[in-house]
Amino acid sequence: MADGPTINTIAERAGVSIASVSRVLNGLPTRQETVRKVMAAADELGYVRNAVARSLKSRRTHQVAFAMADVGNPAYLAMLREIQPVLKAAGYRLVLHSTDAVVADEIDVLHSLGERYVDGLIMSPLRVTEAHLQMLATARAPVVIIGSVPEGTRVDNVRADSRTGVRLAIDHLYALGRRRIAMINGPLDTVPGAARGAAYREALGDLGLPYDENLVQIGDFYRPEGARAVAALLDRVPDVDALMCANDLIALGALDVLRAAGKRVPEDVAVVGMDDTDLAAASWPSLTSVSLGSAERGKAAAELLLERLRGVDGEPRVVTVPPRLSVRASTAGPGYDTAGPGHDREEGGR
Amino acid sequence: MADGPTINTIAERAGVSIASVSRVLNGLPTRQETVRKVMAAADELGYVRNAVARSLKSRRTHQVAFAMADVGNPAYLAMLREIQPVLKAAGYRLVLHSTDAVVADEIDVLHSLGERYVDGLIMSPLRVTEAHLQMLATARAPVVIIGSVPEGTRVDNVRADSRTGVRLAIDHLYALGRRRIAMINGPLDTVPGAARGAAYREALGDLGLPYDENLVQIGDFYRPEGARAVAALLDRVPDVDALMCANDLIALGALDVLRAAGKRVPEDVAVVGMDDTDLAAASWPSLTSVSLGSAERGKAAAELLLERLRGVDGEPRVVTVPPRLSVRASTAGPGYDTAGPGHDREEGGR
Repeated sequence: MADGPTINTIAERAGVSIASVSRVLNGLPTRQETVRKVMAAADELGYVRNAVARSLKSRRTHQVAFAMADVGNPAYLAMLREIQPVLKAAGYRLVLHSTDAVVADEIDVLHSLGERYVDGLIMSPLRVTEAHLQMLATARAPVVIIGSVPEGTRVDNVRADSRTGVRLAIDHLYALGRRRIAMINGPLDTVPGAARGAAYREALGDLGLPYDENLVQIGDFYRPEGARAVAALLDRVPDVDALMCANDLIALGALDVLRAAGKRVPEDVAVVGMDDTDLAAASWPSLTSVSLGSAERGKAAAELLLERLRGVDGEPRVVTVPPRLSVRASTAGPGYDTAGPGHDREEGGR
Repeated sequence: MADGPTINTIAERAGVSIASVSRVLNGLPTRQETVRKVMAAADELGYVRNAVARSLKSRRTHQVAFAMADVGNPAYLAMLREIQPVLKAAGYRLVLHSTDAVVADEIDVLHSLGERYVDGLIMSPLRVTEAHLQMLATARAPVVIIGSVPEGTRVDNVRADSRTGVRLAIDHLYALGRRRIAMINGPLDTVPGAARGAAYREALGDLGLPYDENLVQIGDFYRPEGARAVAALLDRVPDVDALMCANDLIALGALDVLRAAGKRVPEDVAVVGMDDTDLAAASWPSLTSVSLGSAERGKAAAELLLERLRGVDGEPRVVTVPPRLSVRASTAGPGYDTAGPGHDREEGGR
């Protein structure tokens, strides 16, 4: 056998690992400095120069884009925190798009895949329109959607399950003996507002509790509007004993109003939020909240995309991340007061 | 005069604005679709095709990188929230790096500018080392540093002023009649720990208050360690009447411990945090906190970089963002309790 250059001798000459040489020769994402060292060593040793040259000329950008609706929203930031390290560990740079939930901006991002500035895309649209579906059908790079897509859409997809999430919260309140459970919701013409409102009604029905319109108050997904909605509800139903709030900011507004009205939380009124943001553990009393697994969804999406980038073919996959209920003092009482972030007790989804 | 094609006739034919045609012809960042329309119209009209071709072949990437220490840290996220829209409005994509505050990673990012995958870089290092300075001296693209750099460093630079920030807080506590003001700090071998500790000592001195080592407690920058540090301090100095905490998480730990010890906030002990994160307004009592202007620093850095990308030459610039004190219930009392985010009263820096 010829004792010509091998991956081993190149690795030795370049002062890098065998794995690194292999990555360079196979055109996988590798630090530019390593590529240079390996090229130089391969050159000196007269090794299969063409393969190296090919890998350098490949159309790979070693970039992946993440398009989210709002760079200021804690739920998307929780996704970002998980996506970033997974991509970095695999040698990809992250390009960040904030679309302000404008459909035209999201379509633009999908269209721009034709420019081949990234190898793949993770997108979390507020809703998926017909225009999205058309662009997805002809996308020039692998795409993973975080959020619900219509049945039969041919795209990798990571979903939350807010219906089961609301169910966990209502069941928890029921188990604590609460029977006048109100819903403080955001606008019903938004995807989360509609889904959370329907889930509340369904959960009550399954427990044999009547649906009472007096117990439903619509405001907006922010703290001051949440406070106003709770004040209106308290005027109408003074003996309400639990509040299911459609997000954590509404729940913080609820705590403000209950405190001002002299109501004890949770003795008089138990309060549950949704999204389980950092604010939930920081409030007082600390806030029981439904986690829809933003972090887990981000991680799952990054891993699905990496598999596609490694060449895994096959049918589109759907991953559903189960919700969890983080139980804290606003329902379970002062015994939970000192639980800081990372010290919360959780009840699993089902 | 020849009535050949002009910017006006191209714009009309392409169905885009004159400004868009100008941007394409000058090689400025423009949406790819607009570039295509303008090219097609210019082709049809036989206009200066070379200029268009040149602009398309230019080395511009229309990407800018932001390298931050930790994608999970609220202070950096506040910068990101401001940087992203400024760059987007100017037609740049954002590439996000998280360096975990590892110097080698930061050097890598600076080195990688040689690959020309971005037109410029905004970096927020935890500290600037000799290695940083060497890389900055030969950087292949404009760089803006958020953070302190050594005197004479030739780089655009946006700074906070934590010394004045601590001063604002101590003066506020003094004005409220507090005289036994303790400092709950993070490790002194970190840049923020050292700076905030020194600023505390200096502020006391200027007010004629003695520096008492018994009033200083060192823990770490997280809530459980903050709580432990405050518990130790309360054991030693039961009549302490104010706590200057080196960040908001420490201050949340302080509120936990004071509540458990039966101390009223602010009647018995006033509490101030630093960084003015979203957690400060969410806590109860809501937390007075020193803002070091993370959002403003991000915005200023993006604007400085855009000027360089537009070709502005000249000496490196230093922008110092003044701190502010966001006064809430933990020092000012229950009158401030209902102030939500965006409803806080602020005292200006000086």
